[in-house]
Amino acid sequence: MANESGVRRALSDIRVVDFTQVIFGPSCTAQLADHGAEVIKIERPGIGDLSRQFGPYVDGESMPYASLNRNKKSLAIDLKSEEGLKAVYRLIDSADVVVSNFRQGVMETLGLGWDEVHRRNPRVIYASGSGYGSGGPIGSTRKMGHDSMAQAMTGVMHVNADSDGVPRRVPIAIADISAGNMLMEGILLALIERGNSGEGQKVEVSLIDAVLWMEAWGIATVANSSPEADHLGNPLDGGVYLATDGYLVVTGLFKPNPLQAICEVLQIDDLSQQDRFSTVDKMTENSSELESIIQSEIEKHSSEYWVPRFDAVDVLCMPVMSLDHAIEQPQVTHNQMIVEVPHGTHSGTKPQRHVGIPVKLGTTPGEIKTPAPDIGANSHEVLASLGYSDTKIAEMVASGVVGIN
Amino acid sequence: MANESGVRRALSDIRVVDFTQVIFGPSCTAQLADHGAEVIKIERPGIGDLSRQFGPYVDGESMPYASLNRNKKSLAIDLKSEEGLKAVYRLIDSADVVVSNFRQGVMETLGLGWDEVHRRNPRVIYASGSGYGSGGPIGSTRKMGHDSMAQAMTGVMHVNADSDGVPRRVPIAIADISAGNMLMEGILLALIERGNSGEGQKVEVSLIDAVLWMEAWGIATVANSSPEADHLGNPLDGGVYLATDGYLVVTGLFKPNPLQAICEVLQIDDLSQQDRFSTVDKMTENSSELESIIQSEIEKHSSEYWVPRFDAVDVLCMPVMSLDHAIEQPQVTHNQMIVEVPHGTHSGTKPQRHVGIPVKLGTTPGEIKTPAPDIGANSHEVLASLGYSDTKIAEMVASGVVGIN
Repeated sequence: MANESGVRRALSDIRVVDFTQVIFGPSCTAQLADHGAEVIKIERPGIGDLSRQFGPYVDGESMPYASLNRNKKSLAIDLKSEEGLKAVYRLIDSADVVVSNFRQGVMETLGLGWDEVHRRNPRVIYASGSGYGSGGPIGSTRKMGHDSMAQAMTGVMHVNADSDGVPRRVPIAIADISAGNMLMEGILLALIERGNSGEGQKVEVSLIDAVLWMEAWGIATVANSSPEADHLGNPLDGGVYLATDGYLVVTGLFKPNPLQAICEVLQIDDLSQQDRFSTVDKMTENSSELESIIQSEIEKHSSEYWVPRFDAVDVLCMPVMSLDHAIEQPQVTHNQMIVEVPHGTHSGTKPQRHVGIPVKLGTTPGEIKTPAPDIGANSHEVLASLGYSDTKIAEMVASGVVGIN
Repeated sequence: MANESGVRRALSDIRVVDFTQVIFGPSCTAQLADHGAEVIKIERPGIGDLSRQFGPYVDGESMPYASLNRNKKSLAIDLKSEEGLKAVYRLIDSADVVVSNFRQGVMETLGLGWDEVHRRNPRVIYASGSGYGSGGPIGSTRKMGHDSMAQAMTGVMHVNADSDGVPRRVPIAIADISAGNMLMEGILLALIERGNSGEGQKVEVSLIDAVLWMEAWGIATVANSSPEADHLGNPLDGGVYLATDGYLVVTGLFKPNPLQAICEVLQIDDLSQQDRFSTVDKMTENSSELESIIQSEIEKHSSEYWVPRFDAVDVLCMPVMSLDHAIEQPQVTHNQMIVEVPHGTHSGTKPQRHVGIPVKLGTTPGEIKTPAPDIGANSHEVLASLGYSDTKIAEMVASGVVGIN
């Protein structure tokens, strides 16, 4: 359970064979690796993870790729060759978890479907990420999953429409990442269950199911009340106002009369005493009036003025930050959420900065030890650990079955 | 490991003492309960979970509350009374997991901080959800966490700005739910680790850290390249077009020349041959031209016409759906993502429909057995299981220490 530095990791004795690429799958296996699992990324020789095609590039390396593949090893191997598949079978025989997020049917066509893998190694947890599920009218087709499709199908783009009514995608990969988190959950649940039964099982998570889970409150509303009910607002929940130095968000909730407290901070008469603002429904009905009164006060001062004053009456207030400013906040630094990842194979360059580890464990904290590997960076090491001789590995490289970097 | 129906659940032998409320914490403990853990929700007599204050109400029950509290038990008990606290200590002595998402310092003030709980029961996993982390300039204050604050602090509202430049909150609780997923991950990691060490540990996840993880790609870009690089678009990634029956989203990625394939479907000349659209950078530069050419074709037909034609060339296309339509899709039904939850204590009413279980386990699937409890619905049962006599329980109810429903 203890690694070379003597600190135990939660998953130190877990070996993962990782067929994932782009965001969904890699965001899951990155977390497995951060918490100590040995994650062996299977890549196509020469091409590798599709996310390597996305810029920006630093020293020739894709930054998006680098962000979600730290701590992993790369075995570049041709799964369509008999020899390549045989080596991967050997790897699976020694593994605890197999993860993939190919489109429907690809793993089966490669000879790596659940039936085959489970037959070979009944202890393996077999986790599949998909766009739409593994059956059903869309899930049973070969349609590729994508964050944009999941956002369209689940009402997210609709409810995030621009003020002119045109639907808009939420510009972060909420479907991919939440599904990646849930695939991680499923693998951990199955590992716990295996501790009791000794058997692995299948784990499936789709992009659309993960987003629907995010919408639990909205679903409860539209499925049991009225479709419109989901769009009811509360102007005190996340109101956006322009201060002298930029935008602020103000949220007054969870107290008897938040509007009174807001007026106290604004040093204006208590608007909650006026009939038009006396209930949440009335505030919503008259929201543009209310917002313009609040705006005309907020614009007199800076966020530095307002935030502590709202804090003092327990109304939430925060400047709206762009991502480049967000990552420089002292709180983010304190949380170690932007970390230096040592750069691996490209010598003489600076360490990269990437997202840290959000799940904080007290005794067995996660750790970032190694940068994202080049394609095939660990091919030799992994094959040697499976009993392949140097000569044999050299032959496989020469014949193009294995890539070495 | 097997419950009354003979089906094993992954967490059948795990007891959780659940101090959470609203979305973040309950979305975590709902998943623990769905996968078989006994989750005992601690509520304030008479008031209960703050989410009970949010409508719409059906038969007097808050639908938001109902969505994330199925499968749980409710013990209504006054934590500020000596007797109430003593009962909760007894419960913790028998528990595997303690979860909370109060603001900073509340658990400690109640006598339920990590030091006290760990001293009493070293096997307990102690999971805390917070807004900002447990230290640092904001995390060390008593400032309450909220989804809107997390979205403001992490660049999400900024990048989701309206076309007029005003920042906008993503109108679903992406911070709460992704943090809830990660708190679940942390608890499962700690359970796995306890299987090796026999010791519980502290688990911490904050709203802002969970959102930063969602932004891994964006962070990789702005932290290593240029702040502007995060805003680079690709008009073929999630373009929104109006068809005769509503909006569509079109995504052409992961193939050598998606624009050529799109033009083939539109039955127009191959735009990728024109210099102004010949690279992703040029398409981005000339995106309004490109989008208006595509729009002028899409508007001639319905989504029923377009989707299969784009499918045939492996370009992704999907109608943009509102949530009320989204939940009626056959694929969503197939995935069992909208499920009937039996209504509990309000007799004679229809079963409610709520979000299903997104993490699909093959051998030990999750299950929804019971509806969300009324405040104190299980007070008697839980106290009796701790050895309290009926007389003693009646006294505690009479003195207001315990609520019974």
